[in-house]
Amino acid sequence: MVLEKIQSPADLKGLSAAELHQLTDEVRSVLLTKVSQHGGHNGPNLGVVEMTVALHYVFNSPTDKLIFDVSHQSYIHKMLTGRRQAFTDSQHYDDVSGYTNPKESEHDLFTVGHTSTSLSLASGVAKARDLKKDSYNVVALIGDGSLSGGLAYEGLNAIATAKRNTIVIVNDNEQSIAPNPKGGIYTALHSLRQSKGKTQDNFFKALGYDYYYLEEGNDLDSLIALFQEVKDSDHPVLLHIHTVKGKGFRPAEINREAFHAGGPFSLETGEYSSSAGSRASYSSITTDFIMDKIKQDPTVVALNAGTPMLLFNPEQRRTVGEQFVDVGIAEEQAATMATGLAQNGAKPIWAVYSTFLQRTYDQLSHDMALNNQAGTVLVYLASVYGMNDESHLGFFDIPFLAHIPNFVYLAPTNKEEHLAMLDWAIEQTDHPVAIRVPVGPLKESGEPDTTDYSHLNKNQVTQKGSQVALFGLGNFYSLAEEIAEKLAAEHGIAATLVNPKFITGLDKELLDSLETDHKLVVALEDGILEGGYGQMIASYLGSKNLKVQNYGIAKVYHDRYDTEELLAENGLTAVNIVQQILTALNI
Amino acid sequence: MVLEKIQSPADLKGLSAAELHQLTDEVRSVLLTKVSQHGGHNGPNLGVVEMTVALHYVFNSPTDKLIFDVSHQSYIHKMLTGRRQAFTDSQHYDDVSGYTNPKESEHDLFTVGHTSTSLSLASGVAKARDLKKDSYNVVALIGDGSLSGGLAYEGLNAIATAKRNTIVIVNDNEQSIAPNPKGGIYTALHSLRQSKGKTQDNFFKALGYDYYYLEEGNDLDSLIALFQEVKDSDHPVLLHIHTVKGKGFRPAEINREAFHAGGPFSLETGEYSSSAGSRASYSSITTDFIMDKIKQDPTVVALNAGTPMLLFNPEQRRTVGEQFVDVGIAEEQAATMATGLAQNGAKPIWAVYSTFLQRTYDQLSHDMALNNQAGTVLVYLASVYGMNDESHLGFFDIPFLAHIPNFVYLAPTNKEEHLAMLDWAIEQTDHPVAIRVPVGPLKESGEPDTTDYSHLNKNQVTQKGSQVALFGLGNFYSLAEEIAEKLAAEHGIAATLVNPKFITGLDKELLDSLETDHKLVVALEDGILEGGYGQMIASYLGSKNLKVQNYGIAKVYHDRYDTEELLAENGLTAVNIVQQILTALNI
Repeated sequence: MVLEKIQSPADLKGLSAAELHQLTDEVRSVLLTKVSQHGGHNGPNLGVVEMTVALHYVFNSPTDKLIFDVSHQSYIHKMLTGRRQAFTDSQHYDDVSGYTNPKESEHDLFTVGHTSTSLSLASGVAKARDLKKDSYNVVALIGDGSLSGGLAYEGLNAIATAKRNTIVIVNDNEQSIAPNPKGGIYTALHSLRQSKGKTQDNFFKALGYDYYYLEEGNDLDSLIALFQEVKDSDHPVLLHIHTVKGKGFRPAEINREAFHAGGPFSLETGEYSSSAGSRASYSSITTDFIMDKIKQDPTVVALNAGTPMLLFNPEQRRTVGEQFVDVGIAEEQAATMATGLAQNGAKPIWAVYSTFLQRTYDQLSHDMALNNQAGTVLVYLASVYGMNDESHLGFFDIPFLAHIPNFVYLAPTNKEEHLAMLDWAIEQTDHPVAIRVPVGPLKESGEPDTTDYSHLNKNQVTQKGSQVALFGLGNFYSLAEEIAEKLAAEHGIAATLVNPKFITGLDKELLDSLETDHKLVVALEDGILEGGYGQMIASYLGSKNLKVQNYGIAKVYHDRYDTEELLAENGLTAVNIVQQILTALNI
Repeated sequence: MVLEKIQSPADLKGLSAAELHQLTDEVRSVLLTKVSQHGGHNGPNLGVVEMTVALHYVFNSPTDKLIFDVSHQSYIHKMLTGRRQAFTDSQHYDDVSGYTNPKESEHDLFTVGHTSTSLSLASGVAKARDLKKDSYNVVALIGDGSLSGGLAYEGLNAIATAKRNTIVIVNDNEQSIAPNPKGGIYTALHSLRQSKGKTQDNFFKALGYDYYYLEEGNDLDSLIALFQEVKDSDHPVLLHIHTVKGKGFRPAEINREAFHAGGPFSLETGEYSSSAGSRASYSSITTDFIMDKIKQDPTVVALNAGTPMLLFNPEQRRTVGEQFVDVGIAEEQAATMATGLAQNGAKPIWAVYSTFLQRTYDQLSHDMALNNQAGTVLVYLASVYGMNDESHLGFFDIPFLAHIPNFVYLAPTNKEEHLAMLDWAIEQTDHPVAIRVPVGPLKESGEPDTTDYSHLNKNQVTQKGSQVALFGLGNFYSLAEEIAEKLAAEHGIAATLVNPKFITGLDKELLDSLETDHKLVVALEDGILEGGYGQMIASYLGSKNLKVQNYGIAKVYHDRYDTEELLAENGLTAVNIVQQILTALNI
């Protein structure tokens, strides 16, 4: 096995052509074995097997700098840079993250998980090299899916402006996570592929690039020749390389969206081991509700930025037709387009993961909120129970979203509330509204929620007690319930239990009323503590005769954490909080 | 006077060619008279006099939708849409804002002050039109300076993708606020101008646009003919129109950067009435310090996104040469490039207005902070004393920046602290650091600041007292001093006075120690209250025997406010706070 001899990229240099080809076969096989057992990013890595081997054969990492966009396509790179065991030995599968990570290797320059950053990062790395009067290659690898992001364009401009060595590799596999939108940059890439790089209006040449096209982007020898040709260039070059997403695994080549990421799956049949099943979830009820709205009202339009499966599968996308827009990986466009849609009388609903919502602070504020346009933003996986890689955390949303004026941010705790809030958000025209889609198993109250949500900041007191009032926000309402039950059962304390529902403002009347027969207010939130919901309560009550305890997550990039451990470390267990309450009440 | 007859754009329709030409002369004259007396955006509006008259002659606003980017070039539009008096009558100069504003007129679709948003907004407006099966023109006007922003590119892609009527006007005056960077999109525009739109690699055609070039963009008849040609187009068109910034006022045509905005100035000599003078300010000492650093250390590099005058005048830019990078209006690029620079051993210093910093939340978090790279961010005008148009507010920074992990955000209160913090920030390699550049007259302590800022979150107790502790953050430290003086002089109370210096964390040791001989902690911050600094203190002290009062600004888009009035409305006067303290202390 050739791969066994590769401890670092230096070990590739002496390989024969035959050995290099054998190496590509081996790493593809290793990749498929691991991902089929463990899950991960399939298609993106299968498509860059040859490219990665060629890069490490031609360039000299870490002297030459390789910078990966999104970096979920760095598995082969990891295999070739001293981390082989994390792919060949199932006991070590979790030794590496799914993204580049400088803590793992000097060959990884950045921790990256969001798209469209590699070119701007490379522009800085190259500029630092030039200031230090060093000379080596700076190579940025970006996929066509990531090219739709505005930051990628800013980076393209910056590199073109700089005039020194930078090698931009556009890995064009004709696909984002889902199929790319038609038009704009995708028209430009399509024309270039169709013409084998010779189209009249070349987008990259227009920006000043020395442009190279390679049709056979999974051909190792061609890749090596191309990289050798541009290595040590004294000016920016752009290599447009056409690859096949999922290359070498037929099911992944055919069903490219399903095989973007996921698993485990069968190597023989290409079937995923555990299909999502038909059980209702917060996700499925949201989709069903929006589908109904779309059928009833031609002005309802669902928006998404490059992750359409969050809302609709391909079949559903065909059904909703023009009432769904996938803008590509361009979250800012989604937010500002929603503003324009609402201004002109449509009812936009933008579905977005919390971790990517943070790319649009200015669009949420200066566009949607300043103009007070009634768009609906569905915030997914804003929770410690969401994605747990440090590059994809979703629990910073309250500090950055909840303090934007005019925005109404809602935290439902069950199915009925969620759908009532969603209906209200879509139909009202007074405010931009965001909804923190609950995370976890679907809960049903069984009672229709008839709340009028236009009465802003009205909290629901679900249990009237005394001494201690528990504010359980959204996903943590159930924790508040558990604490209330413990206090009652174990200590005879009848706590007041509150479902705040509104994140963007306080129920001051309720808070004022607590002073008469309560000593303590406890606020629980499924997010970071600082700048969060509970701190508003603590501030408001700062002058009153009430003590306040806030519970949330410490402001840290927690990485691949165990959720229960993280919660315990942050004191977020019923047992601990009951104890803290007893202490505060001097019991 | 023709202008006198124009109550709305409908009144243009019956004008003869001669009258239209006379109108352009009149509005230019009116514009110059007002701006020379009152100040405002000179060059941008002078350049679009003919274009605006032609737009309103050919299109039918408000049925046809005109959407202005940045919208500081909307003065002529305002004159022609019922707001003439705000330009012709000096008593009414302040009746209108400097930007489009739906509260003023149905001809203004959006409140806009940040760049690069018009295309995305237009894509939404046009999509809503199509969903409603209406038909009219949607026209988006964007300057070449705004084209460098990633959102503009995302909007270009979206419009090209949509396939229905949208008319994009690129107003190319060969200049951003300052000269545009070379390369990238500016290479593309330059080639198009040089070839009169016929260059081989046409950036806009590559994206799929039906492209038109007009060389004489200040020629009224040509503009009318072009607009008539594309009106009611059934597909997206892009009009690349070459105009002269400052057209018709020689000093503004020559000195385009100085005449981007400002005034009053002399119409005869083109000289500004009040030159900035040579008095030292926080701005000038920052620039001097960075100039010195640059001379001493070739790895120090200053960054800016389209507002280079914030840091360096044109002469200074020539002096610092390659150690200054203006990335164009592309704040995200500045932040992520800084990350790359720091990773590769350079010392980046990014100067940015607070209102524009909010465009980079994800770059500050996912790029700079997650990678923990030691870039320095200088945050200008983060204060109620900064820009006071609702589209340019700078006092939302603490909620969105201070709660990002790893970041150190500092609030200096005088010259010596500011320079000591700046020096530390540049030379250390442990954290990304932002500094809230003080606003207001330069204050000097006269004592060198020898603080070791690597001791994070160590507050400075400047006066040790009892009963009440005053935390005066940054610009509001002087207010805390004033309160302390009043408490002492008028009520015999010796307050503890604290200069927190650190925004991103609390001095827990100090806070813990206050419980022994204090009853009240008061926190003052020059920013919005919610999600701010004081709320962290309130939360931390929520369980202790200390009351807390937080003072800051209410979470509202305050518009063209009087600063002292705004402060008074928010209780931020020494008299009020002293009274509140006395009440809390039961005195």
